[in-house]
Amino acid sequence: MGLKTPAEYIESLRDGRITYWDGERIDDITKHPRFKVPIAMTAKDYEYDSPEYGESRRYKTEDGGYGHRIFQVPRSEKDLADRVEMMGHSAISTLTTGVFMALMSVKDQVAEVNPQYAENIERMYRYCRDHDLRAAEVITDPKGDRKRRAHEQDDPDLYLRIVARNKEGIVVRGAKLHITAASLVHELVVMPTKGMRQDETDYAVSFSIPVNTKGVKIINRSFAPAELNSFDYPASSHHSMPEGFVVFDDVFVPWDRVFLAGEVQLASRLAQSLGLWERTGGVVEAARISELFVGLAQLVTEMQGKDGDPVAQNSIAELITYAEMIRMGLEYACTHYEKTPSGMVFPNTLAINAAKYYYAANFHQTVRYLHDLGGGLVLTLPLEADLRNEESGKYIRKYLHTKPGVDVETRMRVYNMIRDLTADAYGGWQFVVALQAGGGLPAQRLMMNRTYNMKRAKERALAAAGALPAKGH
Amino acid sequence: MGLKTPAEYIESLRDGRITYWDGERIDDITKHPRFKVPIAMTAKDYEYDSPEYGESRRYKTEDGGYGHRIFQVPRSEKDLADRVEMMGHSAISTLTTGVFMALMSVKDQVAEVNPQYAENIERMYRYCRDHDLRAAEVITDPKGDRKRRAHEQDDPDLYLRIVARNKEGIVVRGAKLHITAASLVHELVVMPTKGMRQDETDYAVSFSIPVNTKGVKIINRSFAPAELNSFDYPASSHHSMPEGFVVFDDVFVPWDRVFLAGEVQLASRLAQSLGLWERTGGVVEAARISELFVGLAQLVTEMQGKDGDPVAQNSIAELITYAEMIRMGLEYACTHYEKTPSGMVFPNTLAINAAKYYYAANFHQTVRYLHDLGGGLVLTLPLEADLRNEESGKYIRKYLHTKPGVDVETRMRVYNMIRDLTADAYGGWQFVVALQAGGGLPAQRLMMNRTYNMKRAKERALAAAGALPAKGH
Amino acid sequence: MGLKTPAEYIESLRDGRITYWDGERIDDITKHPRFKVPIAMTAKDYEYDSPEYGESRRYKTEDGGYGHRIFQVPRSEKDLADRVEMMGHSAISTLTTGVFMALMSVKDQVAEVNPQYAENIERMYRYCRDHDLRAAEVITDPKGDRKRRAHEQDDPDLYLRIVARNKEGIVVRGAKLHITAASLVHELVVMPTKGMRQDETDYAVSFSIPVNTKGVKIINRSFAPAELNSFDYPASSHHSMPEGFVVFDDVFVPWDRVFLAGEVQLASRLAQSLGLWERTGGVVEAARISELFVGLAQLVTEMQGKDGDPVAQNSIAELITYAEMIRMGLEYACTHYEKTPSGMVFPNTLAINAAKYYYAANFHQTVRYLHDLGGGLVLTLPLEADLRNEESGKYIRKYLHTKPGVDVETRMRVYNMIRDLTADAYGGWQFVVALQAGGGLPAQRLMMNRTYNMKRAKERALAAAGALPAKGH
Amino acid sequence: MGLKTPAEYIESLRDGRITYWDGERIDDITKHPRFKVPIAMTAKDYEYDSPEYGESRRYKTEDGGYGHRIFQVPRSEKDLADRVEMMGHSAISTLTTGVFMALMSVKDQVAEVNPQYAENIERMYRYCRDHDLRAAEVITDPKGDRKRRAHEQDDPDLYLRIVARNKEGIVVRGAKLHITAASLVHELVVMPTKGMRQDETDYAVSFSIPVNTKGVKIINRSFAPAELNSFDYPASSHHSMPEGFVVFDDVFVPWDRVFLAGEVQLASRLAQSLGLWERTGGVVEAARISELFVGLAQLVTEMQGKDGDPVAQNSIAELITYAEMIRMGLEYACTHYEKTPSGMVFPNTLAINAAKYYYAANFHQTVRYLHDLGGGLVLTLPLEADLRNEESGKYIRKYLHTKPGVDVETRMRVYNMIRDLTADAYGGWQFVVALQAGGGLPAQRLMMNRTYNMKRAKERALAAAGALPAKGH
Repeated sequence: MGLKTPAEYIESLRDGRITYWDGERIDDITKHPRFKVPIAMTAKDYEYDSPEYGESRRYKTEDGGYGHRIFQVPRSEKDLADRVEMMGHSAISTLTTGVFMALMSVKDQVAEVNPQYAENIERMYRYCRDHDLRAAEVITDPKGDRKRRAHEQDDPDLYLRIVARNKEGIVVRGAKLHITAASLVHELVVMPTKGMRQDETDYAVSFSIPVNTKGVKIINRSFAPAELNSFDYPASSHHSMPEGFVVFDDVFVPWDRVFLAGEVQLASRLAQSLGLWERTGGVVEAARISELFVGLAQLVTEMQGKDGDPVAQNSIAELITYAEMIRMGLEYACTHYEKTPSGMVFPNTLAINAAKYYYAANFHQTVRYLHDLGGGLVLTLPLEADLRNEESGKYIRKYLHTKPGVDVETRMRVYNMIRDLTADAYGGWQFVVALQAGGGLPAQRLMMNRTYNMKRAKERALAAAGALPAKGH
Repeated sequence: MGLKTPAEYIESLRDGRITYWDGERIDDITKHPRFKVPIAMTAKDYEYDSPEYGESRRYKTEDGGYGHRIFQVPRSEKDLADRVEMMGHSAISTLTTGVFMALMSVKDQVAEVNPQYAENIERMYRYCRDHDLRAAEVITDPKGDRKRRAHEQDDPDLYLRIVARNKEGIVVRGAKLHITAASLVHELVVMPTKGMRQDETDYAVSFSIPVNTKGVKIINRSFAPAELNSFDYPASSHHSMPEGFVVFDDVFVPWDRVFLAGEVQLASRLAQSLGLWERTGGVVEAARISELFVGLAQLVTEMQGKDGDPVAQNSIAELITYAEMIRMGLEYACTHYEKTPSGMVFPNTLAINAAKYYYAANFHQTVRYLHDLGGGLVLTLPLEADLRNEESGKYIRKYLHTKPGVDVETRMRVYNMIRDLTADAYGGWQFVVALQAGGGLPAQRLMMNRTYNMKRAKERALAAAGALPAKGH
Repeated sequence: MGLKTPAEYIESLRDGRITYWDGERIDDITKHPRFKVPIAMTAKDYEYDSPEYGESRRYKTEDGGYGHRIFQVPRSEKDLADRVEMMGHSAISTLTTGVFMALMSVKDQVAEVNPQYAENIERMYRYCRDHDLRAAEVITDPKGDRKRRAHEQDDPDLYLRIVARNKEGIVVRGAKLHITAASLVHELVVMPTKGMRQDETDYAVSFSIPVNTKGVKIINRSFAPAELNSFDYPASSHHSMPEGFVVFDDVFVPWDRVFLAGEVQLASRLAQSLGLWERTGGVVEAARISELFVGLAQLVTEMQGKDGDPVAQNSIAELITYAEMIRMGLEYACTHYEKTPSGMVFPNTLAINAAKYYYAANFHQTVRYLHDLGGGLVLTLPLEADLRNEESGKYIRKYLHTKPGVDVETRMRVYNMIRDLTADAYGGWQFVVALQAGGGLPAQRLMMNRTYNMKRAKERALAAAGALPAKGH
Repeated sequence: MGLKTPAEYIESLRDGRITYWDGERIDDITKHPRFKVPIAMTAKDYEYDSPEYGESRRYKTEDGGYGHRIFQVPRSEKDLADRVEMMGHSAISTLTTGVFMALMSVKDQVAEVNPQYAENIERMYRYCRDHDLRAAEVITDPKGDRKRRAHEQDDPDLYLRIVARNKEGIVVRGAKLHITAASLVHELVVMPTKGMRQDETDYAVSFSIPVNTKGVKIINRSFAPAELNSFDYPASSHHSMPEGFVVFDDVFVPWDRVFLAGEVQLASRLAQSLGLWERTGGVVEAARISELFVGLAQLVTEMQGKDGDPVAQNSIAELITYAEMIRMGLEYACTHYEKTPSGMVFPNTLAINAAKYYYAANFHQTVRYLHDLGGGLVLTLPLEADLRNEESGKYIRKYLHTKPGVDVETRMRVYNMIRDLTADAYGGWQFVVALQAGGGLPAQRLMMNRTYNMKRAKERALAAAGALPAKGH
């Protein structure tokens, strides 16, 4: 119990978990080249004394111990802003924050239906905090035929379900898709993928179990090969994280780890609560990436002497608009937070959904501006190895010169960053992630339609149309 | 001296001002049908005791008198939010606020160059406040051939200029375009349309003069006829305001009303200061209209029983995104205000420009969603008179019924509001106003390029590309 | 029998038809100021000897008489191109072409179900051709609550229906919306608004009746006032055409004018056939307007000396792309025509729907480019009367000068044309018409989904994915 | 002399050419794993007897021999359609077609300036045709600082230039970027990157030389690793082609291979001629890819039972519009061909530029529809090896089932195809290629502005505005 070191974290992954990748069953992921980069990234989250974020990551819990700050439940605007800022530090921080903040923010609603579940949430939260564990969000079911509901599928397991219940707990069967970092965390926090109806009680299920629980199997996938050179791949050499296809092959879950087992009215609340935090993570990433787009656009333009070109300036202004609208939306969501009955604050639902939707719906078109500014060299730039080779390197240096003060290597890095971020394997992945992470455009539209103050908008429209007396604004 | 009544305001317009409209020289605008609606609208701004905004419009000035709150210089976030909220009350409030807030926020910079000008600004501000006057923003020159600068035009008067200077003052000649409400205010506050170069000192000129000054002539234009029925034209029957083509035919301006007369380095500062406040007014209007779009879209959809239609819901979600992104940008601009050395606060320049640009650049496409939802009845709905005619009215009532609880007249008003706001004379005007008011897309792009924290964005991009060490976020 | 003169056409409108406008029942539309412009426009269609299109409008029918060329059934690519070209001549040509071409192109399908109906179509076609009549397309029902089908509405008349049948004919009741030029034609050709189901036989009804038939009442509406000056309103002063809300108050239709009375399987075919011709008319108009946009954009830009400005050039290139893509789509639709079993050719359904959709979906955003280039003068230009007034006119001439060779009046006309076409009552109307005429975006999407060669596209996708052997392209 | 076999082609690459890749100088590319896929692809172009395109690729030249049909100069609409169809067969066909068609279509213009150059073009064309050679388009210079012209750069070699001339020929120095397939062809056909001015005669240079000429060095780059599994990478496993950074280190070119050496007036004509054919190749590819998008979108939607979903149908209709507008533009360009004085036909310049621009400007946003339909599985689908592994494969088969008739492996291939084509290394590359190939958006805008019939558009606009008498359409 207590904060782990990076080494302890790595050691903790050697727990018999069952993981597949590229046709191979991997017995010890800490020794396998495929996992080298992802584990190194995640282990950094345990560097409590590093100069970068180090000290600021640790906080004193209300029980007098220390916890990673991702576990700190925000109770003020400042807390929330700190939490949101921290979501940008690492993928694993974002994920674990999302899971536990979602559980804690829905806890009061759960308690109204079944206080035992709420206690389980609280206990699991403290357990993970006090053992410095990380957790994955486990939501999306395979869903089979979308025309049919969960219990109408050819195979009843196409949505994860309870196949047995007894005094000790429940047994679940099914699979969950798109589980980022599933092989690298300690706990899998499972939630329903959407609301369920009265006749779907076996599908209204939520719980948390360790990754090495019997019956859990993870098939991994990543956009990145095991090793990437950081000159040619400045973004993806540091950022790859495997996605898991997680199978629950008759997995037993003891009652004290169950958060929902049949109360259909809670299914959509849990899903929405996690959705909000996932999208918050998405908007944090959106703010980071969109600022990078502006910087890269300006650099690539300046470096070739086109910074006075009016068409280039227009494209950069479009990128600025995108970056600023997102940043302002994120900040608004934090300053106009919402609050649970027990005093936990969380980001404004409408603001997060609007900002995430704006980001997702306009991502592709926005990248077009960057591609327009970048030109063909984004794709055709020679590799670092060719630069280092004396014969070919001298030509590269000669012909990529543009003007005094522009260093050729720096210029190459800027092109590589644009390509890696928007026009290569990681870049291609980003297009889909921007759109689909946290639930896709339809999920955000739904939440906006639900949370917008439609009553006021209709009243104002009627007043303006002369059908209602106008009120003061 | 002191606050005027509506009647006093109207009387004050009978001062010999020279005004043309539709080929006619109008001697007394208070008696002319063309001006009936605009004057009624503006006179309302003087109803200090009306239930709508009344009392809240009056404030105690630092001199112990009372002033209209549009003159109150904001010194805190709360002040600024109030000022911005008030900009939505009436066109004349927005305009006068823009003029005086711009002058007062640039005053410190003017003082550095010429303290006398700054004193003139302060004096004119107090004079207008204490006499409860209204003012128009007078900026855009005809500009002639855009390839040439001011002093290179075929006719040197194509930009307003100083044609003579003497001990008492200056004489100016030229014209200014797009001067909203020029015929309805007391003071014309003239500013340069853009930055001027060293050899253009005669064009770097700013001052304020009464509308009835000798040599001032105004040619009016409006999108609206003199009278419009408020059932068929719920928006434009209340909102028309004439635009003035204002001629300065050798107009004398005494030195104590001059704010700039040759100091070219101040020309662009004055222009930008006014631009910021004009765009703030634009974003206030954007927030109002975009919320109306949502309300109208929802009403027209519900009233025909299509509120469960997924494609309609998508379009409404797009309208919500637009409305929310604008509203959040406006609020951000107020909470992240900037400050002059002497303590006046004003909206965040980057935020206002980004929000205004987002509004303007996406206005046309956003209206498409509303038009898509509205359908053909937006155009083909019979007129109120046909509804009131018993013979035709009975058919209209019969055939525009949709479902229980939907009142046919209310439904007609909603269609009329959509048409009037987006698909008729006022609606057509709105498309151009959304785009051009406060300076057009290029002006906003320019300001974003200037005010964005490009240094930080470039550093982060270089760090991400591996060309600079990363800093904590 | 035979071709009419304009005077004969006007006389033919004095037939007791019942028409309302602005609350007034109008007994003789040929004497009423409201109808002056529309009747003048339509009467021009009868000028067989005018220099403009004159002679080319007349053709020798297969019966040896002469007909207006809008009645000529195209039997070759050349015929079709001529017909399509002619649709651009006048609104009434477009409408009448649409009606009769639709009926004639669906005739073979109708004959398979009921040869008597097909004979009626043929007879009505010849009758109208030989008497030189004009007809309106009468389709859209009020539809009431969109969640419910025709026979489920609160009022069964919310879709036009057969209320009685007897030996002589049928009696119909209902109303039809958006009927362009209803008061100005001779025949109302009624068709179902969409497909009907088995239990909706009373709603599957199509026929043609004279406008002055007992029980027919038309309530008119137009975007335009009775008179508009052609300097200030260069487009709308010539183009206004009233839209009719047409009531059928128990109207008797003899069997020989019935084209459908209960055979539900034909309802959607008739609707689609008319839809195709309506959209063809829409694409013809699209090609005309989009070319005007380019010309106006170039003129307004050149006249202020901005033709070398790269941002302006970009916007013009966007307008060119729009105009060319539409023009190429229209031409493709004609060269890749389809053919009925009896040899009539008609435009390619997929091509017309794709081109119309492209036009409609992008119209708003495209106008933005023109508004961006036009600037504020589009709205604030003084009126012609102010130009003609000597006092104000001299200032207008002085200050609207830009450079040698640019005539101020021509420049004013260009601004007026942009405003009238895109930013005034007619302009606002155009936005909705571009989107909604011929059925709105959903109708075009539906037709594309139905007519696209999806089988080939899926096979190629599967072959590319390695799931099917590739075929030669 | 005569047609080569695939083996002869491969053998012909062992000619001492100097090639670098990933830091290594490769002596024999036919033995190197990096080149395995690209050479296999190109060698297929020589399979004159394959069932796929085989026989149709061969034609009888006017000299009585046989040539690959890419060399056949089109002299009719049918010829042109065949040539364009053939451009879709392989990358190398497209490239070689582009080069020689461009040279042959500009030949008449070259002859007017210098008949010797035109003879050289004709001779090189026959030589390559008769020896069945392939050629690369060599255009883009590094360009250095874009603010300065060629001869003003820090290093005069930043645009390729003539450094010496003598009786035998010229010596050139410089580099060319983005040279697709440079290492895989026989001839490098060099052209100026843009128009040159009078003082830039050394930069107005065009010629063809063999790849193994002394002084030529190629640094390669590709988006793809050496080997890719065709189940997981159905597109890129077959389509990778290296891009070359081609250095000319004082390369001697004999006079009979020179097409331009100083006549600056020809520089932009050569560039534009090649640009047209490059963009034609781009539009051919656009038509292919956009049809794939439709097929993939429909498949992925149907396979999960969402084909009745209205929002999905809308997205598919958007994809159809995109595909059809491109296809119609391409066909229009061929049926409205242009013609050289000596009778060669080539695609319509305006049509190709408009269609290419439409494709490029809307590519990103269009892919968004496909990504929206595809969902997260596009990224997270397990690899083929995991499917083949019995333990993990059984889960994959169980949980990716959707409904009867949908084969899991086929479903996986469809997801892989979407990912590979739009959201992975090849997909990322496609975004930039769609935008930049053939010159980027600005180049297409420029050509549209130049070739559009602006005179007619302006006349029509003036006539509509009342400033010119209207003409018949």
